[in-house]
Amino acid sequence: MSHLNFNDRLNMLISNKSSLLCVGLDPDVEKIPANVKYEPNPLKIFIEKIVEATRDTVVAYKANMAFYECEGVNGIEALEHLRTIIPDDVMLILDGKRGDISNSARMYAKAYFKEFGADAVTVNPYMGFDAIEPFIKDKTKGVFILALTSNSGSEDFQNLQVGKDALYQIVAKKAEQWNKNKNIGLVVGASDYEGMEIIRRTVPELPFLVPGVGAQGGSLEEVLKKGRDKNGTGMLVNVGRDILYASDDSDFAEKARERVDFYNREIQGIIRTSWNYI
Amino acid sequence: MSHLNFNDRLNMLISNKSSLLCVGLDPDVEKIPANVKYEPNPLKIFIEKIVEATRDTVVAYKANMAFYECEGVNGIEALEHLRTIIPDDVMLILDGKRGDISNSARMYAKAYFKEFGADAVTVNPYMGFDAIEPFIKDKTKGVFILALTSNSGSEDFQNLQVGKDALYQIVAKKAEQWNKNKNIGLVVGASDYEGMEIIRRTVPELPFLVPGVGAQGGSLEEVLKKGRDKNGTGMLVNVGRDILYASDDSDFAEKARERVDFYNREIQGIIRTSWNYI
Repeated sequence: MSHLNFNDRLNMLISNKSSLLCVGLDPDVEKIPANVKYEPNPLKIFIEKIVEATRDTVVAYKANMAFYECEGVNGIEALEHLRTIIPDDVMLILDGKRGDISNSARMYAKAYFKEFGADAVTVNPYMGFDAIEPFIKDKTKGVFILALTSNSGSEDFQNLQVGKDALYQIVAKKAEQWNKNKNIGLVVGASDYEGMEIIRRTVPELPFLVPGVGAQGGSLEEVLKKGRDKNGTGMLVNVGRDILYASDDSDFAEKARERVDFYNREIQGIIRTSWNYI
Repeated sequence: MSHLNFNDRLNMLISNKSSLLCVGLDPDVEKIPANVKYEPNPLKIFIEKIVEATRDTVVAYKANMAFYECEGVNGIEALEHLRTIIPDDVMLILDGKRGDISNSARMYAKAYFKEFGADAVTVNPYMGFDAIEPFIKDKTKGVFILALTSNSGSEDFQNLQVGKDALYQIVAKKAEQWNKNKNIGLVVGASDYEGMEIIRRTVPELPFLVPGVGAQGGSLEEVLKKGRDKNGTGMLVNVGRDILYASDDSDFAEKARERVDFYNREIQGIIRTSWNYI
């Protein structure tokens, strides 16, 4: 295991692989192709095939816990299986957006880091520091704190004006204060590019986890321009459905790989042409 | 199954049972007494015995998901077992404090209401309306939205001043706007009595779920005075550790029952003496 802090390790992997790609493993059982649908645990086999076809060329996988929890015991078994098929130099992010009093947060940290072997988790800031602290004690494990999300509801609270800042800026500033172990990043959605630019200016060094590209419609080019840090790293772009359901037939894993290659080429193309601007 | 909306049904159960008591089922495997500790699934047997000893005299049980998730498959089996041992006239609240984009929120709603048979869940407001909507479509199922929590981190964001209101008041007002199906309540911790009073004035009709009494030190008397609605209902007081670990020996279920009886007597005593003030 690495002794680097989480943020340095993430940036090193991004540089080494010349990629910012994170594949979202959010398997909806109703969309699983027929050739694996009738397995005893279709979820487990489906993500296994996706991971096997793509793991040599991505920086991270992100599993949204909702899609596993709704499958009960099968879902938990699929989650437990994930770490065993993901190589050590690829990160596993468990996207649970948890946030609870420290007593409960410690239990979540134990489940995600120890039982499921995650490298990082997503957390919700609403309950404040003690809900986050148990997740950042080990500097080799990371958290991405929700700052500005890509859904329409982000307007309801995240954009509220608190003095001269929006609430999401206050969250970003607090996250930076708490980043003593260099293992805190932010979730910044690919829908509000101006907001992303503001957050990048506010916290130049925190890595971003960016959902919303692909099926949700965010622009890869805008995101790469607005969100990377001054070294051109500091960002994971998550693409889920567009890769996972590239085909609804028995060639789904092959087609997923083709989409991963497509996104990696796009990312590298944009990075090359924008190199001078960094 | 009842066709009442969640909030009316909750208030009806509170009146019928002359109790506001919700028992927190947050079983820490390390604290489970020796006589059930060596069962194949100690979590499941421990909570079963607690529920069997107390279910005729409480309004609700609240299970914090963290304590189940950290036990993997055993935890999920224990959760699936819960609904089968809790009577129909006692509510099951799954305390996961979830909040995610609507796609994922739909999955959580399916897991909690369908698979685990919950009557209500707790949700985090940070991501806004579309993160909550999938949980409130069925009027017979409820949500408790985090407003003002009992942990020290509540200072970090919940108390921020947004114009003339604290953020937690804005959350309470939004919750009331969204309460078209009469199935939304708020989580209001037992540590900031003034805050609780402000919220009760702001939203006279929304039920409160109140953690923080018992091991966390909140005063039952203050809470009953500040938090109930004008009918003397509209509130669940959650007590967890003080009931669950009333004894660390083989009489744990009996002792848990004694603590439940104690809290019910206390509640009834306070209600009687304060009747004139409602």
